[in-house]
Amino acid sequence: MTKRIAVPLPKAYLLLNHGPTVLVSSAHDGRQNVMAAAWNMALDFDPPKVAVVIDKSTLTRELVEASGEFVLNVPSRQQAAMTLAVGTQSGREVDKFVKVGVGATAASAVGAPLIEGCLAWLECRVIAEPHIQKTYDLFLAEVVAAWADPQAFSAGRWHFPDEHRRSIHYQAGGNFFATGDAFEV
Amino acid sequence: MTKRIAVPLPKAYLLLNHGPTVLVSSAHDGRQNVMAAAWNMALDFDPPKVAVVIDKSTLTRELVEASGEFVLNVPSRQQAAMTLAVGTQSGREVDKFVKVGVGATAASAVGAPLIEGCLAWLECRVIAEPHIQKTYDLFLAEVVAAWADPQAFSAGRWHFPDEHRRSIHYQAGGNFFATGDAFEV
Repeated sequence: MTKRIAVPLPKAYLLLNHGPTVLVSSAHDGRQNVMAAAWNMALDFDPPKVAVVIDKSTLTRELVEASGEFVLNVPSRQQAAMTLAVGTQSGREVDKFVKVGVGATAASAVGAPLIEGCLAWLECRVIAEPHIQKTYDLFLAEVVAAWADPQAFSAGRWHFPDEHRRSIHYQAGGNFFATGDAFEV
Repeated sequence: MTKRIAVPLPKAYLLLNHGPTVLVSSAHDGRQNVMAAAWNMALDFDPPKVAVVIDKSTLTRELVEASGEFVLNVPSRQQAAMTLAVGTQSGREVDKFVKVGVGATAASAVGAPLIEGCLAWLECRVIAEPHIQKTYDLFLAEVVAAWADPQAFSAGRWHFPDEHRRSIHYQAGGNFFATGDAFEV
């Protein structure tokens, strides 16, 4: 497992502030899954909350609704092909952990796994809002634990160590952007 | 005004898919405002929908609730200082269009203005969801018209023309990332 350090909860929103594409991992009753989600955002600072869209057709949706938990994992550029693969295959048809070759390790506060090799992890508990879940496939959740690879994020700041270990932003098809130059105004 | 072309509505989500920071412009009853919002995402493809967090304390919130409309404007790197300025000053205290020097022009389908010099614009009508607006400051909206600078986005793809005309991703303080390298997997 990648080395990781705890991110203080009031700083957890900073892991998503710049709009990276994430992996949503989930587990329930002996089954687990992982999918990609460009449609995610921070929703509050402290306690930290997030929002993410999880389509009705997905196995992830079933596992998240059953368990009330998920993890948002922030993948790196070197995981972009894996991100595309878990975003285009269905966990109803294949075990993506086996077929795609995704490593998973236990989280601290939720049953959903942490995806190995990522840059950061947000362990989340769903805030039950059945109307918007059903109508918009929109899930709100509280972040109950957060972690980061200290080579990429520490002291409340992203500082990507090299071109391969940067977060990514999904466009369409197999096309992504890497997170680019940091600059201050 | 920057040259702009219409983006077909089923392609409008592509303007936000990569997670840029946006400007939220609003207007009601002779008043208008603009603020920055890192917490935004696409919510659906067709008809396109978006989600954005608008804090209770803001003038934007008052104008959006009164009018039921807003525009999400995608600023470029050369507008980062302006983005920070409109994100840290309150429209209750200053006219940001005058004080910061923000240009605005009429939108096509909503009363909120388009911010000049941006890379793309999504004209939005709020989908009334009073419970989540009140509880989470979360606004859902349908995109009713979308536009892009054809030098930066056309045929459903971003293709930033130079380092200054790239979208931006807010981190914290005065710190941003530019959208970086495009790559395909």
